[in-house]
Amino acid sequence: MFEARLVQSVILKKVLEAIKDLLTEATFECSDCGIQLQAMDNAHVSLVSLNLRSDGFDKYRCDRNLSMGMSVPCMSKILRCASSEDTVTLRAWDNPDTIVFVFESPNRDKISEYEMKLINLDQEHLGIPETLYSCVVKMPSQEFARICRDLSQFGDAMTIACSKEGIKFSAAGDYGTANVKLAQTAETENQEEAVVVEMKEPVKLTFSCRYLNSFVKATPLCAQVQLSMSAEVPLVCEYQIGEIGHIRYYLAPKIDDEEEN
Amino acid sequence: MFEARLVQSVILKKVLEAIKDLLTEATFECSDCGIQLQAMDNAHVSLVSLNLRSDGFDKYRCDRNLSMGMSVPCMSKILRCASSEDTVTLRAWDNPDTIVFVFESPNRDKISEYEMKLINLDQEHLGIPETLYSCVVKMPSQEFARICRDLSQFGDAMTIACSKEGIKFSAAGDYGTANVKLAQTAETENQEEAVVVEMKEPVKLTFSCRYLNSFVKATPLCAQVQLSMSAEVPLVCEYQIGEIGHIRYYLAPKIDDEEEN
Amino acid sequence: MFEARLVQSVILKKVLEAIKDLLTEATFECSDCGIQLQAMDNAHVSLVSLNLRSDGFDKYRCDRNLSMGMSVPCMSKILRCASSEDTVTLRAWDNPDTIVFVFESPNRDKISEYEMKLINLDQEHLGIPETLYSCVVKMPSQEFARICRDLSQFGDAMTIACSKEGIKFSAAGDYGTANVKLAQTAETENQEEAVVVEMKEPVKLTFSCRYLNSFVKATPLCAQVQLSMSAEVPLVCEYQIGEIGHIRYYLAPKIDDEEEN
Repeated sequence: MFEARLVQSVILKKVLEAIKDLLTEATFECSDCGIQLQAMDNAHVSLVSLNLRSDGFDKYRCDRNLSMGMSVPCMSKILRCASSEDTVTLRAWDNPDTIVFVFESPNRDKISEYEMKLINLDQEHLGIPETLYSCVVKMPSQEFARICRDLSQFGDAMTIACSKEGIKFSAAGDYGTANVKLAQTAETENQEEAVVVEMKEPVKLTFSCRYLNSFVKATPLCAQVQLSMSAEVPLVCEYQIGEIGHIRYYLAPKIDDEEEN
Repeated sequence: MFEARLVQSVILKKVLEAIKDLLTEATFECSDCGIQLQAMDNAHVSLVSLNLRSDGFDKYRCDRNLSMGMSVPCMSKILRCASSEDTVTLRAWDNPDTIVFVFESPNRDKISEYEMKLINLDQEHLGIPETLYSCVVKMPSQEFARICRDLSQFGDAMTIACSKEGIKFSAAGDYGTANVKLAQTAETENQEEAVVVEMKEPVKLTFSCRYLNSFVKATPLCAQVQLSMSAEVPLVCEYQIGEIGHIRYYLAPKIDDEEEN
Repeated sequence: MFEARLVQSVILKKVLEAIKDLLTEATFECSDCGIQLQAMDNAHVSLVSLNLRSDGFDKYRCDRNLSMGMSVPCMSKILRCASSEDTVTLRAWDNPDTIVFVFESPNRDKISEYEMKLINLDQEHLGIPETLYSCVVKMPSQEFARICRDLSQFGDAMTIACSKEGIKFSAAGDYGTANVKLAQTAETENQEEAVVVEMKEPVKLTFSCRYLNSFVKATPLCAQVQLSMSAEVPLVCEYQIGEIGHIRYYLAPKIDDEEEN
């Protein structure tokens, strides 16, 4: 039997919002350690990696390892039926055809059960090598979302350049160029609003705006986002999910002569 | 001469929102008793019955009985021109071609008059037999609206089952099933949020989600909705309209072998 | 060198919203006196005249007169990238191909530069004769916007009639007529909400609703709008822009026998 209970169903709602732009189907791997998901987006360009630790749930039981293929739009529909103050419980048997989502109102006067058919999916497990990154930037997630949205108006690709002074985002298109510079925060009085750059060596990489704009759908999960970058290595864009886990997005930089200037 | 004045024009705005999904044209019957409307929806599946008592108006005069055919989208357009704090007066002569809507701002500095052409409509008066229902449920109207919206994601039809324990809504579709159970409220400390079931015998009936979703457009009129059900008899879905009257929607249950389980 | 700095970038954002319905391209004339724009709308029916005085800017320098042709949708995109608390600086060289918009956050931690290509535009300078108007009405800009929106539901054209008692707006269409009367405010305790009519002789003129609905996009710029009218002369619809300047829209009345009644 598999059972995982989360008093704050809103966390799971936000997780679905954070993946549904990129994935239509996904395999959730459930084990004693928790729930994991790792999948390439539909176009096989970026990689999503989600980790929800068992100890982060209010109740967690997993007698046998399970791989459950789920339709992401369908999960998203079901989770939209939960009120934000509801408790959510996921429940499945050992060889499941279906998974049940149970939502309970705080006073338990309303109990909703949604039973969803599972789907068979090919599993592909990608090893993600541990990397030491040249630059690791922490910044307010809303600021990052805003910059991705603003600059994507000016071009399909966005260059992120990181140096001691701070981080620079730029884009160029038919009718002009755009440059946004964020200075490193001098003192971190308010940690959530700080911009902090840990740098071994400067990097300058170009990424597709479209994918970045999908990643920032995770913004409601966390006040800060962490960007890890090295030359010729995929960017990691990471959001903490409360005390439960994290979601990471990986995206390879564009290799293009034009970005050299 | 016909004249009916309502200090809270917002009530009439909400009444129009409550009928405009179902009706494009409607005959408003005005008499000494008040204003009544009874009409089948455009597809002749459900029935809308509206009753606004003359004593609920701030001023009411009706010298002769009038049957005024009106375009519902046009009335709705006119009422959207009223500010929510405006007073509304309906005015017509004894053999009217038109009806006038007058909106007055609280300080009377702004007076708007909208004169709308009446239309000739065939009148059909349906006798609605008084029925003793097996189950009468009172519940928060927003909760009912939410359940109709949520379950209609999962199927075209929704089953309502009523027993001593409470009320259960369910739907089934291609990718799973949905069940929402509401327990009867133990003590009715807050009457507006109570779920109360008066039951002679249990019922289990299936209805088209599409029509239920039109009925719940009346939700802003009243904090509670009353559902009256008996086997093989149309559901009555009733909303009180302040101290003035009520709106009732009638919908026959689906007769379908599949709902038996 | 040209440089103009405005601590409240939100003013420039609102100016763009006020012109982008009517203009796709526009020539901004910059001189020692300030920035001016005068242009017919795309359909060559109405005229927009914008004036931002140099002394209204927080910093202003213009070494040489400049005529800069700009794409209005592009400017609008750029200004949407400014946060409302940002400072904006416009900067250009003496024979510019481009203009730079610099946005600075209050603590200067975020600096965004958008460089936009200029375009060559034919310049047409229309002399607008000084006119003494029969009626000059001042009224709340939101009320005017609301009336334009409401009445445009009832017809393509709207008649404005002005007399000692106040101002009357009317429209007629297939399914009825609409009349909105505003009384002149007795005492102007609250100047922003006052309706004030200065009248030499009554006027009654008819205008295209479509253009009026474009003009009222300037509503966020000012709590009051001023309408100046004379028979057979274009209406002037004027909004003050803080302490910096104003925007005026000109629209010729419709000449139509039907409006005589």
